[in-house]
Order: sequence, then C-alpha cells, then structure tokens
Amino acid sequence: MCELLGMSANVPTDICFSFTGLMQRGGNTGPHRDGWGIAFYEGRGCRAFHDPSPSAESEIARLVQRYAIKSRIVISHIRRANRGRVCLENTHPFSRELWGRHWVFAHNGQLRGVKRLPLDFYQPIGSTDSEHAFCWLLGRIRARFPDPPRQSAGLWRHIHTLSRQLGERGVCNFLLSDAQHLYAHCSSQLSWLTRRAPFGQARLMDADMTVDFQQETTPNDVVTVVATRPLTDNEAWTVMPPGALTIFSAGEPVAAFSR
Amino acid sequence: MCELLGMSANVPTDICFSFTGLMQRGGNTGPHRDGWGIAFYEGRGCRAFHDPSPSAESEIARLVQRYAIKSRIVISHIRRANRGRVCLENTHPFSRELWGRHWVFAHNGQLRGVKRLPLDFYQPIGSTDSEHAFCWLLGRIRARFPDPPRQSAGLWRHIHTLSRQLGERGVCNFLLSDAQHLYAHCSSQLSWLTRRAPFGQARLMDADMTVDFQQETTPNDVVTVVATRPLTDNEAWTVMPPGALTIFSAGEPVAAFSR
Repeated sequence: MCELLGMSANVPTDICFSFTGLMQRGGNTGPHRDGWGIAFYEGRGCRAFHDPSPSAESEIARLVQRYAIKSRIVISHIRRANRGRVCLENTHPFSRELWGRHWVFAHNGQLRGVKRLPLDFYQPIGSTDSEHAFCWLLGRIRARFPDPPRQSAGLWRHIHTLSRQLGERGVCNFLLSDAQHLYAHCSSQLSWLTRRAPFGQARLMDADMTVDFQQETTPNDVVTVVATRPLTDNEAWTVMPPGALTIFSAGEPVAAFSR
Repeated sequence: MCELLGMSANVPTDICFSFTGLMQRGGNTGPHRDGWGIAFYEGRGCRAFHDPSPSAESEIARLVQRYAIKSRIVISHIRRANRGRVCLENTHPFSRELWGRHWVFAHNGQLRGVKRLPLDFYQPIGSTDSEHAFCWLLGRIRARFPDPPRQSAGLWRHIHTLSRQLGERGVCNFLLSDAQHLYAHCSSQLSWLTRRAPFGQARLMDADMTVDFQQETTPNDVVTVVATRPLTDNEAWTVMPPGALTIFSAGEPVAAFSR
C-alpha cells in the first residue's frame, strides 16, 4: 500500500526527519519499490522530485535528504503500484495550475470506475486512477469557481463534497494543496500531529533516529505533519475518522468536515 | 542575456556535455546568477529541475551533471533576469498540460506589452513576461485545437503564426515542446547542429573539454542540439535566420517555417 506524508508550517521548515521515517516504509523488497515523489512549495513556486525506478532513484533521494529544502507546505508519496504501470508519469504527486497557482495531489487507495468520471479541463498524462481522480476533482473546482473565491468556506465545502463522491468509489486517502492550504482527506487511514513550543524529543518508529526539536526550532514555530500511519511512537497523533476532511494553514488545523 | 539549450534525439541521450558548456555561460559574477532550469522528457512524463538561487543551486546542478538523465527531448535555460524578480516561480522552463501531455517552454528576450495579451485557460504563476507569453500561446493552441489534431501541419502553421505575433513585440527566441516535437523559434539568435554517424570529436567553446562521440554513441543515433550560440568551435552549426521556426523530431529537423 502507498504511504502519504504531508506538512504544513508557519515558517519554512525542512521535512528531513519525517522523510527519513517515510523512506523506511514500503515492503520487503526495498524502501520504495514502485517509486516515490515529493513536492515542496516555495513561495508561489513548487519544486517536485519524482522517481519511478528504485535503482536510479537513490541519487535523488539522497539529494532530498541531504539538501534540506525548507518549505511551508510539502506533499510526499511512496508508491506501491496497483493500477498503472511503474513509470515517471504515474508517480505521485501530480500537479496542475488553477487560478495561477500550483495545485498538488497525492492519493492512496483504489477507486472503482473512477475513469468513467467525465473530464473537461484537465486530462491525465499517465494511466493511474489517482491522476484521473485529481483531474476530475480540479475540473469540478474550476467549473464551480472559475475565479478564486473571496471566502474560503464555500471552496472547502465543495472540496469536501467532491471528496465524499470519490470516497464512495473505494479507498480515498489523499493530500491536496492549492499553495495556501493543505487538505487531508481520510477514507481509511490518515493521522496528523501538530508540534509547537515547548518542543520535545521525537523518536521514529521505522528507523533508529531521535530528534530534539527544541534544538531545531524557534519558540514561535508551528508545524503539522500528516501521515498514513503515525511516524513516531512517543507523540500523541490524531487518528482521523473515515470521511473526514481536515484543512491546515500555517501549521495548524483551521477547519474540519466529517462524513 | 539568457541562454537556451534544447535537444532532440532518436534514442534516450544524456545532455551532460552540452549542459557543461551551457553552465559556463552567463556573465562574470557566476555561472548562472539569476537561476537556471532544465526539463527532461521521459516517456510521457517530464522531470524538471529549477534553481533560482546560485548558492543553493550547486547541489542540484551537480546532480544533473553527474546523474546523466537520458531523454529524447530536453529544454534548458539560464536566466539573466530583466522582468520579474529572481524566485522559483519565475525560473524557466515553464510547463502546463494540454491534451494529456506536458508542454514545456523556455524563452529568451523581452516582449513589449505582452501582459496585455488576454488569457483564458492558463494563468501565469509567476510574474515574468515569458510565462505570460507561454500561457497565451498555449491558450491559443487549445482554443484552435481543443483535441490533438490528426495531422501536424495545421498545428505547426498555427504555432508559427503565434510565434510571429509574439515576435512583433520584441525579442522572442524560444524552445517549446509538446512531448513529441521540439519547436525552436528564432527572433534574433538561435543555432542548431545535428550529430549522426560518422561521429567525431566535439570541443566546447566555453570549457576545456572535448568529447569523442564515437565512443559514446551507436551508429544509428541521431541527436540535434539547439542553443542560443554555438557551443562547440569545431562543428558546423546552422545559424537560424530571424523569424524562423524549425521543428525537430527524433533528432532531426522535420519542418521549417520562415518569416
């Protein structure tokens, strides 16, 4: 199964610690057998790395771990292919432009008959169910809001409605961002954790690694991490219920919708 | 001034040699003062690296030089900012999806009043004239061809007409790709060179480096390199005349339009 990892922060923050935990996951044959990808927002820009091939990918994974790109919003995904062959264009996260902003999407799960959903504006480049679902979702958002809405509430409700429609087709855990907010939709498995002062130590479940965030942060930093399963075993993660959509901004949850 | 570099090849080919030459260029204060970017097509996918900041970028430039990504179509750009501040979202090449394909664009020059060109489908994320021109160009292509045309000739003529309209506004040297062809438009400065068997030695103008392509290739390889100025001093480059659009496929020119 795929693993999702997201971050929302109030100051540019690196995700090295959580990324190290994520990279340990994904089956017995290797740390990321069917590819992985990560997108970092930097201002209005977005920097993405994708790697479909485990052998060649190590070079890029090492870069990402070493380079410590700092970002306010990050979306990452490790793929275990079920639909769509293993290749660059099928590697999450996917992105498209709407309203002059990068939208980024990564998905975990299988969606029955999703390719029968009609598309208009956005067309998939690869062959995954997930990219089709993203193109449909973003096309529906665009149809309803040709221009960015002044108030977020209507947009958020619309995204929740669309998420439920996707969720009716199967497992639909996803992370989405419009460059301003991080949207986390849980269909079966997604957890999040907010770190703020006083910071303490965090210990990875999947690797022999501990970080003392007090050494790494300032007292005003607020950072939320969202992951398929909790990444640390000594912090209090919030396990999202099925059907929930939680929206994060500047490191904190700002809205939540339930089924 | 900016420097463009493009490649079209009939087999996946690395661009390390030409990229090394390109990286030497760009003024006295450093090899790529206002950022650089490169996009590699891999199948239907596209892998892009962008770096707005010279200090941080070295890590990614080293990766690209060392990693030797093989591709059939490459577009690269070194930026000397004239319009739009130096940041990730203003770093070429730009990309958007049309017909389920990645379109990639990099531009050299300044275009008067280009931001008055009306946009519909695609909106710029950054603030450069170049991205605005790309959004306009791709929107015009989409308006004329909502679906991919069966014959290429009409599309190519349309791209030439649009290129001329942009060229009326100033300097408009650009490289464009629709994942199948490489389009090179010359407004003031662009040259290209096709390498095929029998391969010989090539010597970079900008660095003390020579490659014997006979050691690096098979007899059936055909590779065209397009650059703002010739990169080697012992090969016969074709200097494009102002107003010309040349279209490359699988390493060779397949069509040319003149003013």
